Amino acid sequence: MDGVLASVEPQLVKYYNQVYGASLTLEQIQGMSGAEAFPKDAATRKMLNLPGFFRDLEVMEGAVDAVKKLMKHYEVYVVSAAMEFPLSLMEKYEWLQQYFPFIDWHNIVMCGDKSIINTDYMIDDYCKNLDVFKGKTLMFHAYHNTTLDHHYRVRSWQEVLNWFERELDLELKVTSEN
Amino acid sequence: MDGVLASVEPQLVKYYNQVYGASLTLEQIQGMSGAEAFPKDAATRKMLNLPGFFRDLEVMEGAVDAVKKLMKHYEVYVVSAAMEFPLSLMEKYEWLQQYFPFIDWHNIVMCGDKSIINTDYMIDDYCKNLDVFKGKTLMFHAYHNTTLDHHYRVRSWQEVLNWFERELDLELKVTSEN
Repeated sequence: MDGVLASVEPQLVKYYNQVYGASLTLEQIQGMSGAEAFPKDAATRKMLNLPGFFRDLEVMEGAVDAVKKLMKHYEVYVVSAAMEFPLSLMEKYEWLQQYFPFIDWHNIVMCGDKSIINTDYMIDDYCKNLDVFKGKTLMFHAYHNTTLDHHYRVRSWQEVLNWFERELDLELKVTSEN
Repeated sequence: MDGVLASVEPQLVKYYNQVYGASLTLEQIQGMSGAEAFPKDAATRKMLNLPGFFRDLEVMEGAVDAVKKLMKHYEVYVVSAAMEFPLSLMEKYEWLQQYFPFIDWHNIVMCGDKSIINTDYMIDDYCKNLDVFKGKTLMFHAYHNTTLDHHYRVRSWQEVLNWFERELDLELKVTSEN
């Protein structure tokens, strides 16, 4: 959800600058871990625990249309690692109701780690989630994963759609050959 | 969680009797669906949406000790179909913190349906969850499943432990033979 459906990077920079009087830019944190990007006061965890942090996130560009398109061919689940920040549970639910009301509650999962999630594909920004996943993986570009390259990187939802278009072609080809 | 870790049956009867002036007993609802047991006013859904309903549930007898014992041999996850009742998200989290504080947040999942959950075992009271599960299943006895017999029925946490004791023996035997 965060870093894939929701644009969390600008919000982290904005909050950090406000709370700690810093003047970080999005460009400066590329290639850094959360701890490196927001070093003062173990700030990342504190920011993510602030009321409203998740509720106020902007939608990732192109996410709404792309998810609608994927839902024509796939059963789409939103799987969010929300349990570390309990305040986020209701905020994330409300956020999804606002921006993705067409995703049914059956298809929403708030979890701790994602190791017991069994789907065919996973789109995620964190390698800790992608690395233990058994299906095919897409790594959504984020400041903290720019130096990692063992998953297929997508830099936008358009690139996600492009990837799935090729995947669907492949599936159709396999089906027609059998 | 409900009907397995948390004792939901007495709470449903108590709330129904209070709200609708009925005088149901636990014995009377055995073998009934939710709609049959609590017929007035589509009551089941309304009761589950009441603030406090989940927060005030009692722990299922023997659940705390049994989960602690299972955790010595297994990675135990709590997977709760909470998404249909968003109010329950925080209540269920707080309830777990109170009664099962030894279960780490990594191992808690609040979901819609449970079809994408991939573990080796599932203990659940609802066949809709057990029927689509790929691992081994234990059906925890509940008023709404008394007439179903296509999963192994456990009537208490002691019976769960007995089952896993045999399972561990079996695993140890297989391991020593290989």
